[in-house]
Amino acid sequence: MAEQDIDRLVQLLAKLPGLGPRSARRAVLQLLKRRESLLQPLATALADAGERVRSCSTCGNLDTIDPCAICVDERRDGSQLCVVEDVADLWALERTASFKGKYHVLGGTLSALDGVGPDDLNIPALIARAIDNPGAEVILATSATVDGQTTAHYIADRLREHGVKVSGLAHGVPVGGELDFLDDGTIAAALRDRRPV
Amino acid sequence: MAEQDIDRLVQLLAKLPGLGPRSARRAVLQLLKRRESLLQPLATALADAGERVRSCSTCGNLDTIDPCAICVDERRDGSQLCVVEDVADLWALERTASFKGKYHVLGGTLSALDGVGPDDLNIPALIARAIDNPGAEVILATSATVDGQTTAHYIADRLREHGVKVSGLAHGVPVGGELDFLDDGTIAAALRDRRPV
Repeated sequence: MAEQDIDRLVQLLAKLPGLGPRSARRAVLQLLKRRESLLQPLATALADAGERVRSCSTCGNLDTIDPCAICVDERRDGSQLCVVEDVADLWALERTASFKGKYHVLGGTLSALDGVGPDDLNIPALIARAIDNPGAEVILATSATVDGQTTAHYIADRLREHGVKVSGLAHGVPVGGELDFLDDGTIAAALRDRRPV
Repeated sequence: MAEQDIDRLVQLLAKLPGLGPRSARRAVLQLLKRRESLLQPLATALADAGERVRSCSTCGNLDTIDPCAICVDERRDGSQLCVVEDVADLWALERTASFKGKYHVLGGTLSALDGVGPDDLNIPALIARAIDNPGAEVILATSATVDGQTTAHYIADRLREHGVKVSGLAHGVPVGGELDFLDDGTIAAALRDRRPV
């Protein structure tokens, strides 16, 4: 392990979420075994992404073009704005292929403990976007955590001041979920929001 | 997720051991958030390692110099050759700082199922190295798996033909291990190899 180049690579890889020092060492050995098929393409892809990928100045999505492909896509409904915490959440929604509106990425959640206020997030731009789009619906798709819901409440209050229509994701039983394994809050929400069948 | 550069990076990262598609996506977002401190250094470190790190022609260790730093280190005892399956095992032994001899990396284990024979591993070079070092002790530190032990037995037989002194790692209770949680084989081995206290 005295070897500097390898050590440095292990330390950098160990900073990625999901990799600790041990798995980073295994990853480095794998990379050095598969130079042509893995190491070199990865080095190139990293350099390319670092150079070309930018945050969309409209919605905060990551893309090589600005505005991003979703913002410039005219087939998408600009009157529906889905507010997500992070680009990962945008990707999760896109994988479902069930939303055809546009997005707004906050870049995190409000957090009094961590000192994150509204101006640290992409909230002022969201308010401006909603006001510029009269009649648009803002769908709050923040996480169902305390911070996520606090953020959603704050944004909903601000938007309602300007008469913007605001909605939120439904709470309920996950598809494929067993009642027995669900927490009380989810079951209570599913019962409260019950619907005719 | 329509974005090509990002997609490619996710797919490459997902090939690393320990990372699946979901954690690769999280890693990519982390990388793009920390361009200066993580993405760019990682791209550089990968390119550097890919260019500079080579297998040691003597022992099979990975290093930027050939022979590697361990092989050329005159403070290390050349009359003790520790045989390991992989560079990861060499690193594990080096971290203990309890071995001051030299190493020989096999590059895997014999495996009839996968069609790995002695000539596919670094075994002929090991035999030659042992013969060139009269009086040297070969310490077999392959894993205590079926394949690892088969490989150790094969090497031990071959080396004994040439009168080389061969030893193997002790089996027994891991330090800090509780008897109740150990498998029968380990307990039997620890009992068989019991030692005066």
